[in-house]
Amino acid sequence: MPSAPDPARLSLNTATVKAQWTLAQAIEGCARHGIRGIAPWRDKLAEMGVKQAASAIKAHGLTVSGLCRGGFFTAKDWKDDNLRAIDEAHALGARCLVLVVGGLPPGSKDLAGAREKVKAGIAEVLPVARQAGVPLAIEPLHPMQAADRACVNTLEQALDLCDALGEGLGVAVDVYHVWWDPKLEQQIRRAGRQRILAFHICDWLVPTRDLLNDRGMMGEGVIDLPRIRSWVEAAGYGGAHEVEIFSERDWWQRDADEVLRAMKDCHRRAC
Amino acid sequence: MPSAPDPARLSLNTATVKAQWTLAQAIEGCARHGIRGIAPWRDKLAEMGVKQAASAIKAHGLTVSGLCRGGFFTAKDWKDDNLRAIDEAHALGARCLVLVVGGLPPGSKDLAGAREKVKAGIAEVLPVARQAGVPLAIEPLHPMQAADRACVNTLEQALDLCDALGEGLGVAVDVYHVWWDPKLEQQIRRAGRQRILAFHICDWLVPTRDLLNDRGMMGEGVIDLPRIRSWVEAAGYGGAHEVEIFSERDWWQRDADEVLRAMKDCHRRAC
Repeated sequence: MPSAPDPARLSLNTATVKAQWTLAQAIEGCARHGIRGIAPWRDKLAEMGVKQAASAIKAHGLTVSGLCRGGFFTAKDWKDDNLRAIDEAHALGARCLVLVVGGLPPGSKDLAGAREKVKAGIAEVLPVARQAGVPLAIEPLHPMQAADRACVNTLEQALDLCDALGEGLGVAVDVYHVWWDPKLEQQIRRAGRQRILAFHICDWLVPTRDLLNDRGMMGEGVIDLPRIRSWVEAAGYGGAHEVEIFSERDWWQRDADEVLRAMKDCHRRAC
Repeated sequence: MPSAPDPARLSLNTATVKAQWTLAQAIEGCARHGIRGIAPWRDKLAEMGVKQAASAIKAHGLTVSGLCRGGFFTAKDWKDDNLRAIDEAHALGARCLVLVVGGLPPGSKDLAGAREKVKAGIAEVLPVARQAGVPLAIEPLHPMQAADRACVNTLEQALDLCDALGEGLGVAVDVYHVWWDPKLEQQIRRAGRQRILAFHICDWLVPTRDLLNDRGMMGEGVIDLPRIRSWVEAAGYGGAHEVEIFSERDWWQRDADEVLRAMKDCHRRAC
């Protein structure tokens, strides 16, 4: 067994309480519960205003483990949107900008073509991100989301993109998306310290009742979280453990303070 | 574009009409609609009786493109059940016995351990299958079914097992499970003529409303079927195009003769 997880690494991805809290409330909630990291989604950030958010986050001494999200390179307005996202990540001092790369364009079945678009899109915004000092984190999404959200679906595929496009680019390892992968340990090792930019945690429920919004809290499902954390840490990752739970039927229905208490408890017991 | 699909290759996997028809009805249905292949599931086969099914299938001149299914090597009674399945596949003259290998045992999070069990289980029954002249087809299942149905989730992983265990073992390529895989073309080429034992077709719907029983008819979704067929045929596969559609909300609700007509039509137009 690996050593106990460090509670100082815990970070709240605001999706986890998106039904309950504004970003301002999430920032205060983290401070109140002694959670030292936060990862805002951009819709909540826009609501609050980037400047105000940056100053509240700073005032409470929180680390921004990532900004969610850029990407969707197969959509129409992809470029402007990604440039704005890079600006926002810079303004927040985010450790990375998470890229959910986008799926098939409407009406298309050309998966290889979508993947080429993604590669070209990242290549185009990467120099801007480097200039701004914002690392871009490709998040491979679960294959069940290949059509509609992201056509990068394994860590191996994401790292091939990193190899091809060079510095300033890495990966976000979200256990929900990659836990099933027979090459996971090998590819985490390959990614290494430099390229693991984020580590997202939650759990895979059995049965899973929805392809998007039925994630579990750590320990509720079948993912061997201590094992995956040990691989990530063995690769040299020393960043946040960011809790990202989309849960229409359960966690979004609960009091958000209860969710944060459960996060801390389950991080300690199950990760 | 590849050449038009050969209608003589069409095969009905009985899961496609499992809500409507017994195996006897499915056999007669195939004969009536000029569909020359069938792939029974073992529950339907048990209902009808193996001898009676074998003789009805023979009387109608149908090819048995596969028997569904053996596997579940992580369950308690796995060995006896697989030996029975091999016997039944032999009795039907099936082109292969499809293996859905099983997921995590109840309460377990040890995916690597489950994968070892699967490997050991296949190794144990493979000599019996060889003796009976029944090729075993490992079916990699979609990663979203890793926990509860099959911990072999990519073609690459399945072929690594084939490499390790040798002759008499191959793969079932079901587009529903593998269409998203960035290494699909490469791994189909690697599999080659000898090891592609079955080719299952249907479609991936957007949105998908259920992880098990919401498959589409060919052409209804986003899978580039002609492209994948061209890869399989380029690898030398000359067997059946087996239609396997689990569809609680749509195709299982329709008249089965309508389903078979749609199968033929969509095979011609969309594959």
